[in-house]
Amino acid sequence: MDLTKIKNPAFLKQMSIPEMEQLASEIRQFLIQSTSVTGGHIGPNLGVVELTIALHYIFDSPTDKLIWDVGHQSYVHKILTGRATQFNTLRQHGGLDGFPKRKESIHDVFETGHSSTSLSAAAGMAIARDLKKESYHVVPIIGDGALTGGMALEALNHIGDMNKNVIVVLNDNNMSIAPNVGAMHTMLGKLRTSNNFKRAKKDVETMMKRIPQAGDKIAGLAERIKDSVKYLLVQGTFFEELGYTYLGPVNGHDYHDLLQNLQYAKKVKGPTLIHVVTTKGKGYEPAEMDRSGLWHGTGPYKIDTGAFIKPVETAKPWSAVISDGVLRLAERDERVVAITPAMPVGSKLTAFQQRFPDRFFDVGIAEQHAVTLSAGMAASGLKPFLAIYSTFLQRGYDQVVHDVCRQNLPVMIGIDRAGLVGGDGETHQGIFDISFLRSIPNLVLAMPKDETEALQLLETGFMHDGPFALRYPRGHSSGMSELVSEVQPLPIGQWEVLIEPFDCVIITFGATLQMATEASHALLKRGIRAGLVNARFLKPLDEKMLVRILDKQIPIITVEEALLAGGFGSAVLEFAESAGYTSIIQRLGLPDAFIPHGDVQQLLKENGLSAEKISQTAIRLCQQNEKLRKTTI
Amino acid sequence: MDLTKIKNPAFLKQMSIPEMEQLASEIRQFLIQSTSVTGGHIGPNLGVVELTIALHYIFDSPTDKLIWDVGHQSYVHKILTGRATQFNTLRQHGGLDGFPKRKESIHDVFETGHSSTSLSAAAGMAIARDLKKESYHVVPIIGDGALTGGMALEALNHIGDMNKNVIVVLNDNNMSIAPNVGAMHTMLGKLRTSNNFKRAKKDVETMMKRIPQAGDKIAGLAERIKDSVKYLLVQGTFFEELGYTYLGPVNGHDYHDLLQNLQYAKKVKGPTLIHVVTTKGKGYEPAEMDRSGLWHGTGPYKIDTGAFIKPVETAKPWSAVISDGVLRLAERDERVVAITPAMPVGSKLTAFQQRFPDRFFDVGIAEQHAVTLSAGMAASGLKPFLAIYSTFLQRGYDQVVHDVCRQNLPVMIGIDRAGLVGGDGETHQGIFDISFLRSIPNLVLAMPKDETEALQLLETGFMHDGPFALRYPRGHSSGMSELVSEVQPLPIGQWEVLIEPFDCVIITFGATLQMATEASHALLKRGIRAGLVNARFLKPLDEKMLVRILDKQIPIITVEEALLAGGFGSAVLEFAESAGYTSIIQRLGLPDAFIPHGDVQQLLKENGLSAEKISQTAIRLCQQNEKLRKTTI
Repeated sequence: MDLTKIKNPAFLKQMSIPEMEQLASEIRQFLIQSTSVTGGHIGPNLGVVELTIALHYIFDSPTDKLIWDVGHQSYVHKILTGRATQFNTLRQHGGLDGFPKRKESIHDVFETGHSSTSLSAAAGMAIARDLKKESYHVVPIIGDGALTGGMALEALNHIGDMNKNVIVVLNDNNMSIAPNVGAMHTMLGKLRTSNNFKRAKKDVETMMKRIPQAGDKIAGLAERIKDSVKYLLVQGTFFEELGYTYLGPVNGHDYHDLLQNLQYAKKVKGPTLIHVVTTKGKGYEPAEMDRSGLWHGTGPYKIDTGAFIKPVETAKPWSAVISDGVLRLAERDERVVAITPAMPVGSKLTAFQQRFPDRFFDVGIAEQHAVTLSAGMAASGLKPFLAIYSTFLQRGYDQVVHDVCRQNLPVMIGIDRAGLVGGDGETHQGIFDISFLRSIPNLVLAMPKDETEALQLLETGFMHDGPFALRYPRGHSSGMSELVSEVQPLPIGQWEVLIEPFDCVIITFGATLQMATEASHALLKRGIRAGLVNARFLKPLDEKMLVRILDKQIPIITVEEALLAGGFGSAVLEFAESAGYTSIIQRLGLPDAFIPHGDVQQLLKENGLSAEKISQTAIRLCQQNEKLRKTTI
Repeated sequence: MDLTKIKNPAFLKQMSIPEMEQLASEIRQFLIQSTSVTGGHIGPNLGVVELTIALHYIFDSPTDKLIWDVGHQSYVHKILTGRATQFNTLRQHGGLDGFPKRKESIHDVFETGHSSTSLSAAAGMAIARDLKKESYHVVPIIGDGALTGGMALEALNHIGDMNKNVIVVLNDNNMSIAPNVGAMHTMLGKLRTSNNFKRAKKDVETMMKRIPQAGDKIAGLAERIKDSVKYLLVQGTFFEELGYTYLGPVNGHDYHDLLQNLQYAKKVKGPTLIHVVTTKGKGYEPAEMDRSGLWHGTGPYKIDTGAFIKPVETAKPWSAVISDGVLRLAERDERVVAITPAMPVGSKLTAFQQRFPDRFFDVGIAEQHAVTLSAGMAASGLKPFLAIYSTFLQRGYDQVVHDVCRQNLPVMIGIDRAGLVGGDGETHQGIFDISFLRSIPNLVLAMPKDETEALQLLETGFMHDGPFALRYPRGHSSGMSELVSEVQPLPIGQWEVLIEPFDCVIITFGATLQMATEASHALLKRGIRAGLVNARFLKPLDEKMLVRILDKQIPIITVEEALLAGGFGSAVLEFAESAGYTSIIQRLGLPDAFIPHGDVQQLLKENGLSAEKISQTAIRLCQQNEKLRKTTI
């Protein structure tokens, strides 16, 4: 059928299973075709084609609430809810979002992006439904990877106890982003491979009810014998002990199995968990064979060969610059260990993992644990390097404050994807971290301008006996300087003057140094000698240098690819205030808003971050300063 | 024995069980006597007297690492490690900390305060031990309440999989702070009350090994039959499925049971969980009988009657002002629900709970879930009020950003204990929230000056169709104004001029308005007419009023009981900068440091927050401004 003609999922209700099988095949073709051009989360979506069709067949969205955990596997849902025509704009500026978006469709009832939120949202909706005496199904769909996130486990514990109808669909593909880890994973593995006894379950329960109630004295034992027999015949004790009716394992690519179990789940009272086993990348061989997570999310690729079409880049990805640096430290010092919450591929730590498997720890989607695990390691004399995306570090904020910084422990945090991230959009922009980290005592926060400085800062962090966080952006490094073989640590808090300040000065760091450099060149052509300072330490500031600049009484322009509120520019304002200066300072950065997905350069420009904007600001401030000087003379 | 003579726990090794029983009794007497004067966490500590003695008898601290989760139950540990003499200074300025502190003792190997961190720290230490080829035991002691915190579950999942020796002591007292909740609680309850089969366990496992390995085809079934028999005879399947050797339930007040199991645990390879059942408040009747959590932490009390000795206060506690206000909203509108993560007593929500049991949700120690649960409720048309301490909201930071504010959902967050908290000290000070919340788009952040304004702001938040956070301090309300029966909402972002600005202006909010008022009176006596503005909205700012003030070109002094970095004063600096003013602004607030425990007034004074300091600052700035004016004329 023509997928672009679909308006809503109602058409599914009339379909036979062979027709749905045909539909699944067409959707797969469409997804492969479409993401081979735009890129996107192809692996997770190919895995849930039948599951999504079955869910929309059995449930009535949007009356029934389908909540897609993490949300990057909602492409099939988007197609079935009338958005196939927009897939050519997927993850592009102004185009279709890669995640559920309430503004896009009434079928997107809760927005997701960060992992493990769906169960909490579902609990809230089930409570609201019952209080308002409404009647509908609440169906969170959560992966086995996301289930190990702490907040999902908190919610699992709450839902299991609250005796409300919630149908948890556990989409078990045996992977998180990379291969899954942890004890629950092993437990699920046992379930997954065991024989299917679930049809016996109802009979067992009926039988159990016939066993007469024993007297008080042996009631406990009788109860255990009952549980024991049940354990023999019924699967999923782990979930049953938490209060769920467990259904499964269900073959997630078999409509008979799926429909029968989903239909049954609708009738069960209280919390139910359907364990659906799916194959990530199903139906497209390169993705289906992937065991490392390369096909989790991709850029454009060639369909026939599965080769990724990469833009021509001479420089390394930033993640690789940093992880290679950490590997060098690890070769030198056996105390160095590396930790990642489920991002060995994204953080480019696979080389470290291969070289030092015993010193590498992928803890799964568990950011809070990852931070305090690192604190425990540091308290026992190791030198942990924790690689974590800026947006996911938000999950570990309390642990950074309470466990790492309060105890002043030497944990190195590599803040990956700091700044705008592009296609992943507003749930993933790394633009909060300066604001939430800058106020934490004891923490050193830095960002390199290029590869060499990255290695110098790693060295600095490694030598420092306290918490040290190093931001670096998504994408490829600047290639601004040659790599040197031996690097020296930098004095903590020391900035670098790139162009000596004269008429005004631009202070910035990291990726925005490039536009600031362009601006200073453009300004020079107009006769304005704009200084340029590389503020590679965001905390502590280079107070000596700031005093020197403030004493010149020239305008200061700070530039940052981060939220203005509480950001780096605010730190400069704060210093000027506390040192008693009333100077002309202007901060350029991101406004008080969530920034959607799109091309990073375009987003920057739209939000007032460009060489032109810096130049214009400098010209205006210099004129203002001139006037002020004339007035005061 | 004389507890004050104890230098370290080595003396225990020579003791007989009757002697340890005598020691336990003496420690209880000491704790009751001592906390009846100083106050403190008496309930949790009375529950772990035998357990702590047994741990120090079996293990060799500090070589073996005892990690006290939450840490407020470490008093017995502090006595046994030579700190009894300091108990008269407990939780007082410069005195003994109420939580483990590495500076206090080599036996405090990891500092705790927030719940659920011990397992992650233990995992880190066990990894470090094995990498460094050292040999010692790592023993986290975690309560059943703390175990439901997401990060503890993340760590449980990791430890269960990593095949390292970690001995988890589960201190199950059937309470978190209030009575415990959740499905795990029910599961533990079943274990707790069941007959004790654990001695059969080893026999069962030996027997199991004798069953010959079946062929591939029926291996799965044979495995399940084995597991099933094991389930009949062995406890703790939940933990066993997660990879732990489960020991228990152990009577936590019986040395025979405790020592035997701890001894056994030392020999087990891989992760072990000892389920120790204790009674909170054991040995002191008022505390032992408490089912609501009143004896979790107390002020001074009369030993004979168990009556709390309260300072004479006419005004209500702030938590009660707010929760009474929420109750009134709930009576008016059935969409209003209240959520607390384990703090029904502390947040004074018990009246709400009694009045509307179906609309009240204590989710246990699960801050992340609590925030997104509220988001789910709001997305389905309820009006959730989430009461959460400032310091614990740090745990839900990502959820506030990603789920509440990004979706612009009308969740009201009551930020309790905002500002300095006193005795609980540096792990609990509510001084970060302005810095980490102020940069979040869509969020309204407010703080009332008195009871009436609190109700007005609650009304404002209730009417507002978006996220609204209301800060209020620990302790008693100001009594500054009479409660009125009908309150009107305030225009969002509108401040209040209390004294019209003339020579300078003090801008502050909440508790510090009192010292600012005193300062303005003192200044008037010296001929300086200092204005006073109640900045009840910290976000958004009252930009119109700020422009009016900035246009006057008078010095501005901002005052806040919060960290200066990224705080409210920074917001004022940012506005002045973005509106193009170069004004004399000085911010008073807390420095870039963790603030220890002690009397709040004393801590404020030490950190430069007092009426005198404000006056001095105003005088200095007014002189400076006068000079500046003369120069520029």
